[in-house]
Amino acid sequence: MKKISINVIGVDLGATNIISLLVSKDGEVVARDARKTMGAKGKKKTISQIIISAKDVLKKGEEEGISAESIMALGIGGPGPLNGDGGVIHVAPNIPGWTNTNLVEELEGEFDLPVYLENDANAAALGEWWLGAGRGIDNLVLITLGTGVGGGIIIGGEVLHGARHTAGEIGHMIIREGGLLCGCGNHGCLEAYASSSAVVKRTVGAIKRGEKTVLTDLVKNKLEDITCKLVYDTARDGDKLCKQIVEETGEYLGIGITNIVNTINPEMVILGGGMAKAGDLLFKPVRKYVKEHAFTAAMKGVKIVPAALGVNAGAIGAVAHVLKKKDLLKMIESFDTDLIN
Amino acid sequence: MKKISINVIGVDLGATNIISLLVSKDGEVVARDARKTMGAKGKKKTISQIIISAKDVLKKGEEEGISAESIMALGIGGPGPLNGDGGVIHVAPNIPGWTNTNLVEELEGEFDLPVYLENDANAAALGEWWLGAGRGIDNLVLITLGTGVGGGIIIGGEVLHGARHTAGEIGHMIIREGGLLCGCGNHGCLEAYASSSAVVKRTVGAIKRGEKTVLTDLVKNKLEDITCKLVYDTARDGDKLCKQIVEETGEYLGIGITNIVNTINPEMVILGGGMAKAGDLLFKPVRKYVKEHAFTAAMKGVKIVPAALGVNAGAIGAVAHVLKKKDLLKMIESFDTDLIN
Repeated sequence: MKKISINVIGVDLGATNIISLLVSKDGEVVARDARKTMGAKGKKKTISQIIISAKDVLKKGEEEGISAESIMALGIGGPGPLNGDGGVIHVAPNIPGWTNTNLVEELEGEFDLPVYLENDANAAALGEWWLGAGRGIDNLVLITLGTGVGGGIIIGGEVLHGARHTAGEIGHMIIREGGLLCGCGNHGCLEAYASSSAVVKRTVGAIKRGEKTVLTDLVKNKLEDITCKLVYDTARDGDKLCKQIVEETGEYLGIGITNIVNTINPEMVILGGGMAKAGDLLFKPVRKYVKEHAFTAAMKGVKIVPAALGVNAGAIGAVAHVLKKKDLLKMIESFDTDLIN
Repeated sequence: MKKISINVIGVDLGATNIISLLVSKDGEVVARDARKTMGAKGKKKTISQIIISAKDVLKKGEEEGISAESIMALGIGGPGPLNGDGGVIHVAPNIPGWTNTNLVEELEGEFDLPVYLENDANAAALGEWWLGAGRGIDNLVLITLGTGVGGGIIIGGEVLHGARHTAGEIGHMIIREGGLLCGCGNHGCLEAYASSSAVVKRTVGAIKRGEKTVLTDLVKNKLEDITCKLVYDTARDGDKLCKQIVEETGEYLGIGITNIVNTINPEMVILGGGMAKAGDLLFKPVRKYVKEHAFTAAMKGVKIVPAALGVNAGAIGAVAHVLKKKDLLKMIESFDTDLIN
């Protein structure tokens, strides 16, 4: 009798950082590496960074007694829109020069492993579904609140990809027709109101319109030093303008979530990204708005909660993506971690 | 050798009319009955109307040589929110006195047949998917434009029910934060802008604000006689205000569809209900808006088309619901209508 473990490498290719994890089929993180994406240095450099990072966790795994044979595949979450089945990243808005890159081919050439590609936001949603805030919840929506607003939708335990692999672009839901200009060129998108950069922009706009706040003193009138975190911290300290901005942000997000609850009716909405760490300051107005505006029947029992996996969500989700492709996630409950040979 | 046909009764329970169809497994409509719902006369009366209507198509079917044994089940589309699996209509907003009615139990007591209940908008979406505009399209969204704005979502060939059987409430997507008051109590819902009653309301509002239109002459200043159809007809004749109202309605609908395309990314959006008969007058501005505002990658290949089944969609979809439950729809392609015994 011999113990056989099954392990997967999960990589999250972000605009700033690459995170690689070596994860067992049962969700135990065995090794981790994080390094810079170096997107500005070109595609070749970034691919080399991915390879170095993945090899680093392989090495660390070996030191922990994980044999190369036990590693079944490499999963990677990359910027969208992409075609997961074809392995191609069509456009990477925040990493220049990646148009129509077949990342799967590039990586399969380097590792003697099958490689599976998933959109990064979908991967993060899968990660939270597998090991995070959404454990056991088969119908959930993840909304990431960062420089942009991203999203991943899971229905019946499967990622909703849609007809063109672009489902989940929740940040570009129009919530105020004719409203603020969004980076995508439209007006009134959720992202233009509820991303961390939108919070900063709305705050700076209010200051320029003459609204009073202690923020101006805190940044010594250098408005470019205002961050989303600073706005939330200052709101927590009782500053009137910041409290108002934070309250409004909750309401804008509430509109987006109300629309999701009425349309898709998930069991859970998970908020991730830096802003989700603001706790009650963010969640209270969001929950209040949704409770007051979504259909009562749709809203019953819908939980709105913070993400649990932090920056690791994408890499963990990339592992979950592999395990799902291999039909191994369903098996966890039916047989034990160790196989008898 | 004996021919065995399989047939299903499909019923659409609407606020005004009940439509019953006898439909073969292959989608041939053998018999039809339509009669008043008579909701104001109480639940008992309406249930009796359903029974009379279903028995009518049974009788007509018999006259066409359809034996009672060939009828495998009765499917019914009813007003939501409901719990299709439990057979219970929780609330019927437009038929009084129906709170928590177990319609399946009521009908199974009357017919010697299994009865299956589905939400009416979902049933209409299923109908269009099976035999209408969405034939062969497994990812589609149906939006019905009537007194209200309803919706049904089909993903991977299955109705999206969501956690509480309330998915698809597209009419209550907020498209203009703080906008017009909706019947649901919220402000800025799609329904408050793009339903047929909203079109009338917005037109009357404009006239009362002093805008000039030939409509006032056409209805001899009786503004209560203005209908949605009249607004569209008058727009077609070149009236400036009506043209503007119609154009704006297309844009509002365009916002809703843009949000659906970016979030769910279906292959097709079908517009049903009376207003969808307006043709290019409605579809041109809708398609233009979505093309200009939805993500290019998401929008590629998305068709926005009118519904094909008219008022029969719900009853046909109720039949499709039964056939899906019985796993009979998949079989259509693999074996012929006639079984050899």
